[in-house]
Amino acid sequence: MDLKSFIDSPCEWLKATGPDHDIVMSSRVRLARNLEGYPFSQKLSKDERKTLIEEVKLSAQSSTKLKNAFFVETQNLNEMDRRFFVERHLMSVEHANNKDNVGLCFTKTESVSVMVIEEDHLRIQVIQSGFDLMKCWKLIDQVDNQLEKKLSFAFDNTLGYLTACPTNVGTGLRASCMLHLPCLVMTKQINKVLQALSKLNLAVRGLYGEGTEASGNFFQISNQSTLGQSEIDIIDGFEKVIRQIIDNEREARKTLSEKKQQKFFDQIWRALGVLKSARIMTSKEATGLLSMLRLGMDIEVIKGLNRKNLNELLIFAQPAHLQKRKGKTLNPDERDIERATLIRETLSKVQIV
Amino acid sequence: MDLKSFIDSPCEWLKATGPDHDIVMSSRVRLARNLEGYPFSQKLSKDERKTLIEEVKLSAQSSTKLKNAFFVETQNLNEMDRRFFVERHLMSVEHANNKDNVGLCFTKTESVSVMVIEEDHLRIQVIQSGFDLMKCWKLIDQVDNQLEKKLSFAFDNTLGYLTACPTNVGTGLRASCMLHLPCLVMTKQINKVLQALSKLNLAVRGLYGEGTEASGNFFQISNQSTLGQSEIDIIDGFEKVIRQIIDNEREARKTLSEKKQQKFFDQIWRALGVLKSARIMTSKEATGLLSMLRLGMDIEVIKGLNRKNLNELLIFAQPAHLQKRKGKTLNPDERDIERATLIRETLSKVQIV
Repeated sequence: MDLKSFIDSPCEWLKATGPDHDIVMSSRVRLARNLEGYPFSQKLSKDERKTLIEEVKLSAQSSTKLKNAFFVETQNLNEMDRRFFVERHLMSVEHANNKDNVGLCFTKTESVSVMVIEEDHLRIQVIQSGFDLMKCWKLIDQVDNQLEKKLSFAFDNTLGYLTACPTNVGTGLRASCMLHLPCLVMTKQINKVLQALSKLNLAVRGLYGEGTEASGNFFQISNQSTLGQSEIDIIDGFEKVIRQIIDNEREARKTLSEKKQQKFFDQIWRALGVLKSARIMTSKEATGLLSMLRLGMDIEVIKGLNRKNLNELLIFAQPAHLQKRKGKTLNPDERDIERATLIRETLSKVQIV
Repeated sequence: MDLKSFIDSPCEWLKATGPDHDIVMSSRVRLARNLEGYPFSQKLSKDERKTLIEEVKLSAQSSTKLKNAFFVETQNLNEMDRRFFVERHLMSVEHANNKDNVGLCFTKTESVSVMVIEEDHLRIQVIQSGFDLMKCWKLIDQVDNQLEKKLSFAFDNTLGYLTACPTNVGTGLRASCMLHLPCLVMTKQINKVLQALSKLNLAVRGLYGEGTEASGNFFQISNQSTLGQSEIDIIDGFEKVIRQIIDNEREARKTLSEKKQQKFFDQIWRALGVLKSARIMTSKEATGLLSMLRLGMDIEVIKGLNRKNLNELLIFAQPAHLQKRKGKTLNPDERDIERATLIRETLSKVQIV
């Protein structure tokens, strides 16, 4: 697949709009679905895979929401393409690593996507910029209904939707938000927050989902319970928790701005200085410094930047994006140079005041 | 004393001229002299101090080299003035800390100075930009001869000039060079060099002389032997050693530029980035970063800066200079903010390419 057109074009959820988009980078809802008459993903034969992918493809083409969507199969993707989709949050790491052929369907804006033959047969995902889970829910509910017209989803009247892992049984719904919480980290309140989330049975992950560590003060928080509540009730309860964290982060930003202004602003300006001048930069350092810069913009210490550029840099500075842009494989040292160059060039175009 | 006119005017030895001035910031020769008919400095009575200072003052006024020089007595200086002279390398820390009244004579360019009642009655100093000890020697020899016309220096036909500490007996001469050796530090060759110097009975000190640690890769190297050789022979032998170190540093710079270019240049650019953007900076950090910037200029990675500005920043960013410039006492936190501001403003005026 030719991914050229995707390299410079940002996905829509990076556009930095929607409620509380300064703290909530994106909101996401996904539904786990499985087709009747097939074993779960791990047990599918080669022929069953083929028929299943074909069935999903046809149902997508006949739905209004996905009829113009791209549909790719991993047998046609090289290693770098797969990493690219992981960096774009369209594929999970497990999905990309599957040695058998699996599918991916996604709209041009990348707001709606379906992983085919992930842990479940379908993992439908809607992702939006800012804090707007209801918008995600309304859209994914439509997509789900449209797909269900052609597909028979495995459903039990008592349990609800059946899934490969019992933790997803019922609604098959997972809601998540990518939160930027630099000031809860700086004021060392983050551990308290994380402990509270754990008690509420909410999961916390890093920028790239399951199995990734939090970096750059970005935390992906998601619900774990899928059973015994309606979808709306699950989302409603989850939203209330996220609202509380947003308020805590805002409070911490205010405190730092007022009480430790000089030290706080110094860290932000230094991040900008290093980003604008370094010649070599690891992914980890870049994420951390871009996090500080994002904060600087949020609290209006640094003016002239826009959040969309910054959100994009977080993605474009990832390994596969760097290599796709350069049009060749780069070793880690070469990537660190390319990353520093990309960031420096992007920031040099901005008149920062 | 009103030091205003000195705050922004750089002393001549900072002007970055003279042979090998990229590596040798300055060359210095000093002579220790004592007057006949007085006990050594520590034993002087109040009246003797007064007469001695007066005698030196008169002899300076009658010499051509010092007749227009400033002559100050520490009883008229506040604590901040004294620190100012230490930062200017016109007073030693011990001289500035003396609770009794002591004197200081210095020319407008600050190239020639005399500490009166330091460890010895007179410590005559000539300091020049770059690597030019012979020029220092010729000038200090003239000053010494002119002062000797009015003053009787304690002299023994066998030992030579008599001094308070036996290590200075003979010529009373100490030659020293302030060397900038970042690449010997980076390539970890510096310890070998320092060990070799120690075997040659040469002393290594920091930016502010005896009792100060090396910082920012600046090393003040000086001879220790004053006896049994003529002044010219001492300087000649000392010059040969310094020449060797200069060559070693040049070789290390070449190696780093060729073999580890990216990592090396990255450090230099990062230093510039931080200096241009930090809002708080300690003296130690500033010295270290300015050292990297100086190196960047030397090897022409960073263009647009001039070495004189950088040399000046090293001095102007010191505590007393910052306070004199601001016109008030500043606590350490306030100084760190003032320092960052001074450096940022100075560098923002330069178009760096």
